[in-house]
Amino acid sequence: MSFRFTVRSTDGSARVGTLETPHGAVQTPAFMPVGTQGAVKATLHRDLADSGAEIILGNTYHLFLRPGDELIARRGGLHRFIGWERPLLTDSGGFQVFSLAERRVITEEGAEFQSHLDGSRHHLTPERAVDIQARLGSDIAMVLDECLAYPSTREATAESMQRSVRWAARCRARLTEFRDSAGLKAGPTLPAVTISNGGQAQFGIVQGGVFPDLRRESAEATVAIGFEGYAIGGLSVGEPIDLMYSVVEDTARVLPADRPRYLMGAGTPEDLVECVARGIDMFDCVLPTRNARNGQLFTSRGRINIKNAKYAEDDGPADPDCHCYTCTHHSRAYLRHLHLAGEMTAGALNTLHNLAFYLDTMKRIREAIKLGIFDSFRQEFLRSVSRLSHDS
Amino acid sequence: MSFRFTVRSTDGSARVGTLETPHGAVQTPAFMPVGTQGAVKATLHRDLADSGAEIILGNTYHLFLRPGDELIARRGGLHRFIGWERPLLTDSGGFQVFSLAERRVITEEGAEFQSHLDGSRHHLTPERAVDIQARLGSDIAMVLDECLAYPSTREATAESMQRSVRWAARCRARLTEFRDSAGLKAGPTLPAVTISNGGQAQFGIVQGGVFPDLRRESAEATVAIGFEGYAIGGLSVGEPIDLMYSVVEDTARVLPADRPRYLMGAGTPEDLVECVARGIDMFDCVLPTRNARNGQLFTSRGRINIKNAKYAEDDGPADPDCHCYTCTHHSRAYLRHLHLAGEMTAGALNTLHNLAFYLDTMKRIREAIKLGIFDSFRQEFLRSVSRLSHDS
Repeated sequence: MSFRFTVRSTDGSARVGTLETPHGAVQTPAFMPVGTQGAVKATLHRDLADSGAEIILGNTYHLFLRPGDELIARRGGLHRFIGWERPLLTDSGGFQVFSLAERRVITEEGAEFQSHLDGSRHHLTPERAVDIQARLGSDIAMVLDECLAYPSTREATAESMQRSVRWAARCRARLTEFRDSAGLKAGPTLPAVTISNGGQAQFGIVQGGVFPDLRRESAEATVAIGFEGYAIGGLSVGEPIDLMYSVVEDTARVLPADRPRYLMGAGTPEDLVECVARGIDMFDCVLPTRNARNGQLFTSRGRINIKNAKYAEDDGPADPDCHCYTCTHHSRAYLRHLHLAGEMTAGALNTLHNLAFYLDTMKRIREAIKLGIFDSFRQEFLRSVSRLSHDS
Repeated sequence: MSFRFTVRSTDGSARVGTLETPHGAVQTPAFMPVGTQGAVKATLHRDLADSGAEIILGNTYHLFLRPGDELIARRGGLHRFIGWERPLLTDSGGFQVFSLAERRVITEEGAEFQSHLDGSRHHLTPERAVDIQARLGSDIAMVLDECLAYPSTREATAESMQRSVRWAARCRARLTEFRDSAGLKAGPTLPAVTISNGGQAQFGIVQGGVFPDLRRESAEATVAIGFEGYAIGGLSVGEPIDLMYSVVEDTARVLPADRPRYLMGAGTPEDLVECVARGIDMFDCVLPTRNARNGQLFTSRGRINIKNAKYAEDDGPADPDCHCYTCTHHSRAYLRHLHLAGEMTAGALNTLHNLAFYLDTMKRIREAIKLGIFDSFRQEFLRSVSRLSHDS
């Protein structure tokens, strides 16, 4: 039931591996659909699994506010509550506190904020982020970190990064307390926490913005604390794409080769391929699901915007190379009609396709790495997805 | 490829039969989920079929306005356009003209109205309703009729019913022209119409409000015109339930036993059972789908409103007797959470369940009739579904 990561093959910096978790294995490089509030928007779990999703992500901030981590713990944890028996990763809640909550105040202790739902006041500390995720019982929990906007000054970035390192150490200490006590513990400073998943792993997060030396300093300090895996945070927030790739490349290089590397919040299909090439093993992003609901489809020939009038009488599938339910049963003309008519089914069909495209891309990436032809796959993929002038 | 209805067994006035259509057979009594704009809201066709839906309904008014019947004809008809290869029924558009459109003016010629979408002006005549449905190519088309509000005076009801009979005759004449010309025909008064389904059947509609003699007059006149099947319209519009049952009973009795009888726009699970007992073979209603999106679930023990606080920590399925995907995978607590969180997945899961419940009820009805135990089934069903005080 414990967490284990095994690299099975490499091709340049790209690698194929297996994450073993208490809820089963995940082939890497992996894309994790985002199940914000306990559901990947506009899909059923069954369809996710059929599309090849082996792990999904839950957002701690949302689940903490509604329905509440204690209610979820009473249901037996997030897996049982949502009926998803495969691996789950939860973020720390920090990103949404920084992007969504109101009136937030950051101190050394943690983040005070008001709920975007009802204005209620909360205090998210590193220890609390660990406790909440312990109750949720995800297979992989993330440390609480501070996410800065881009651009930020070097001074602000250094200060924030160093605080994130201190927070990471507190998160690890809290988890260690749980592990040492093998479950429940209560006291004046340590409230009772139901541990929903005894095999939960914890990942540290490297920050440092776009400053190579700060990234290195953060990576070294985070690795020194010691986690089951390492994430790269604070990217995909508006920086130029080449700068993102360069930070990913430099950071991945200083992370231990025997631990999974997770690039948080990225990205486009091109980003997946480019960052796998730089040693990334795990990704999550709302792009395929959010854009689906807005009518943007990712295809093997580039992105298409299904609202476009040129699809009104197009009897072909969204993506002629795709074998998903949407592409094998429905035309662009129908998808366009449903989208313009405001039918929920449009969001469902578009989401099914976009996730199938992302998950199929990951599968093709893994196969290319195993065959040692990843670089030619990558060149061909980048050519293909830019074949259409992106019409959206 | 032609239309045929065969009664296979009867039990009192209830009967089991088979509708054969150009797109396959339908077991009756049948419930037809409503696919307003070419999709049953919040579902995929695959899940509909898996739930036991053998026929779905499309709304001519909506499809005529968007994407347009001519566009659909160019796609090869509604089946091909929406990717549903089983039977389809289309209404005439009249009901939505009377309930949804703006500034409508009814004359002997037809109904002038403005689109609720963009205010564009249209004129729906009986002939036009036939033409539009010919382009859509449904397996069963309905004649254009006038739907009155409840209550209406006897005088208004009689006048409207008699006009509906004249419109029915014009609809039948128009279809006969198509059949005689075996397809395309054009001229100053007869524009070219693409016939998307050469085996399309046409049903007449009995009106007459809640006046038994007007209903009888309408039924006799409509049967005299001669259609492949007969619908009872103008009910489930606010009249007392016992009055509805009584009109259904009296009207079904004067309709030919060898033709299918379709009660339009009804109803609750209790209505299905009660009206099958009175000789009805086909039903359509938005209740299971619309109420699902509002959080109301139909169960074998009555209706539940999933928003209710008492379900917040309820780990049981929506309906313990149900074998649908929702009930076998998810708890009331999770469904409540998704609904309160505004997740589209809530609508999808609730819709799956409600349709499964309706379609399973029809299956149980058919089995009870075949076994000759329909009356005891009916008594037990009515007791069961009222077991919970309906909490919504």
